[in-house]
Amino acid sequence: MVSHFTVIKKDPSSNARLGQLVTPHGVVETPAFMPVGTQGAVKAMLPRDLREMGCQILLGNTYHLYLRPGHELVRELGGLHRFTGWEGPILTDSGGYQVFSLGAMRKITEEGVRFQSHLDGSSHLLTPEKAVEIQESLGSDIAIALDECIPHDAAREYVRASTERTMRWAERCLKARSKNAQLMFGVIQGGIFEDLRRWCAEEMTAAPFDGFAVGGLAVGEGEQLLHMIGAFTAGLLPENLPRYLMGVGRPEDMVNAVRAGYDLFDCVLPTRNARNGTLFTSRGKLSIKRAEFANDPRPLDESCECYCCGNFSRAYLRHLYVAGEILSAQLNSLHNLYFYHQIMKRCREAIREGKADIWTPAPAAGVTP
Amino acid sequence: MVSHFTVIKKDPSSNARLGQLVTPHGVVETPAFMPVGTQGAVKAMLPRDLREMGCQILLGNTYHLYLRPGHELVRELGGLHRFTGWEGPILTDSGGYQVFSLGAMRKITEEGVRFQSHLDGSSHLLTPEKAVEIQESLGSDIAIALDECIPHDAAREYVRASTERTMRWAERCLKARSKNAQLMFGVIQGGIFEDLRRWCAEEMTAAPFDGFAVGGLAVGEGEQLLHMIGAFTAGLLPENLPRYLMGVGRPEDMVNAVRAGYDLFDCVLPTRNARNGTLFTSRGKLSIKRAEFANDPRPLDESCECYCCGNFSRAYLRHLYVAGEILSAQLNSLHNLYFYHQIMKRCREAIREGKADIWTPAPAAGVTP
Repeated sequence: MVSHFTVIKKDPSSNARLGQLVTPHGVVETPAFMPVGTQGAVKAMLPRDLREMGCQILLGNTYHLYLRPGHELVRELGGLHRFTGWEGPILTDSGGYQVFSLGAMRKITEEGVRFQSHLDGSSHLLTPEKAVEIQESLGSDIAIALDECIPHDAAREYVRASTERTMRWAERCLKARSKNAQLMFGVIQGGIFEDLRRWCAEEMTAAPFDGFAVGGLAVGEGEQLLHMIGAFTAGLLPENLPRYLMGVGRPEDMVNAVRAGYDLFDCVLPTRNARNGTLFTSRGKLSIKRAEFANDPRPLDESCECYCCGNFSRAYLRHLYVAGEILSAQLNSLHNLYFYHQIMKRCREAIREGKADIWTPAPAAGVTP
Repeated sequence: MVSHFTVIKKDPSSNARLGQLVTPHGVVETPAFMPVGTQGAVKAMLPRDLREMGCQILLGNTYHLYLRPGHELVRELGGLHRFTGWEGPILTDSGGYQVFSLGAMRKITEEGVRFQSHLDGSSHLLTPEKAVEIQESLGSDIAIALDECIPHDAAREYVRASTERTMRWAERCLKARSKNAQLMFGVIQGGIFEDLRRWCAEEMTAAPFDGFAVGGLAVGEGEQLLHMIGAFTAGLLPENLPRYLMGVGRPEDMVNAVRAGYDLFDCVLPTRNARNGTLFTSRGKLSIKRAEFANDPRPLDESCECYCCGNFSRAYLRHLYVAGEILSAQLNSLHNLYFYHQIMKRCREAIREGKADIWTPAPAAGVTP
């Protein structure tokens, strides 16, 4: 049997690897970044523009799509691909992350999570079986087993108990599967405790998952712990299956994680920052609203080949932002996502050429070109 | 000397004509619709998508660009084309329409209009000379002479005095010109009074304008007066120069005006309606927010070949609108503008084929497919 994941090449100087992930809607070359299509749309982006910039795979949010427009409606309309007009691969999360973010509006039991909709306050129960049902209705290429995303400052005893429950939920998710074509990833939790991470990884990797997601990181634990626990956990996962570091992140975090052996990433940062006027460049971040750009005829990033940098000045982008034009969100999102995809492309090239050790992106923090 | 405007063909059954308008940034085949780029951007539209849908010429608003980012800044940055990334023809209005819309915040004298900025309350004086200076700084292909847009219910004596002042202002605009390449259109006012329209047209057409705009219509006077005064005024204008019916309008109004002999149109309707979820189709208007579209798998308009209709269902478009996604404004604007450009394209084809009498678009009002 041909595997859905192939490691094409391994970097000699790190744990980075070049891979190919085969899904029902096409092949993803890894490492790859997945733009977030929260409500069935990557904010301010036409699918054709995503495709054009080299986007290979999108992430859809189970929680949001379940509440609106509803997974059954999406299924009736032919699934999430047909519904959104994105014909490439889609990964859906389990809904867990959003539900756990609801704080006082949710209650965890062994059965699942009872929560109130942020839209209308209505009550819902998200069980492992329900998470699978929703994702099968959405028809994503990769589903994620339901897990609890644990706060970074949770006490050890809570982390232990929660991680154990996540493992029981994972088993229920596997049992609930009815579609063979849809891949399913298990989620490794365990907080900042290496022994709990190891325990969770051992249990999870013994189950027939098609890949593994690492959760509970990039949730406020700080850069050092993120890199440390991230790298430690990657080392616990099988070489022959894809690894997805959930919610990461900043360009330098992603590149670090590529070196640690991760293959897939997602983050709202490029699109959310874009709408706030914060733009990534090869020389660092840039806040386009600043007065100094009012008459700056240069493109955002002189070394960028995106549509935005090829056609518009910083002065124009600042004007659009200040004037509140929708086009501001469009052009900024287009650039930031292009930038993210270029980082992944350069990672893949660096691994292919055996040069992963020498390529480092500019730090994202506070540098103004 | 070769003229900038050529009538290619006249329709035997109406006053419609097929024309070619040569501008410094390219040729416009008329009749043509000009999307409105109020603040240097057509709302929610990338320039490349406008180009792709057959858009030939944009309208820029002198009032808005003067206040923000400022015409001098735009000039320093290479003019409006370079600034906005739109390399095709641009027509700018005189700023008069917006200033007169300010109501209590403006005061008219012979010298010009003193007004307060809607952005910060600062005081400004818009004179005919200033309107020309701003438009020359913006570097538009076609400038409009400063006029007063008269309320549709103004008393005859006011209309007479105002129209006379508009004629004096027009003369001052011509005198203030310093650029030969930029075309300048004079504006015909005169309200709903045929004798005043005739008087204004006689005076204006005696001056060396490169075309004529007809103003003071589509401002609340009703469909019948719009068509009547519009057709009457068109008949007063020289055959060999372009005619622009300002602010018109609904699809049926435009087609009517094409038959009356107009060549250029502009209106915020397609883009503003798009953002409000009101979409034009070959079978009438459609409000995408309605519950009946929640599970409708059909495209917006089955006979439309735009990117939106080719890839997305009514159900998805409704979802995007209800969810408040920016993509809703993008796809809706793309469709509505495509629809408007198709109307103009069909008008041109109908005239070319001598069939202008038989083609009528669906009424815009209240028909739901």
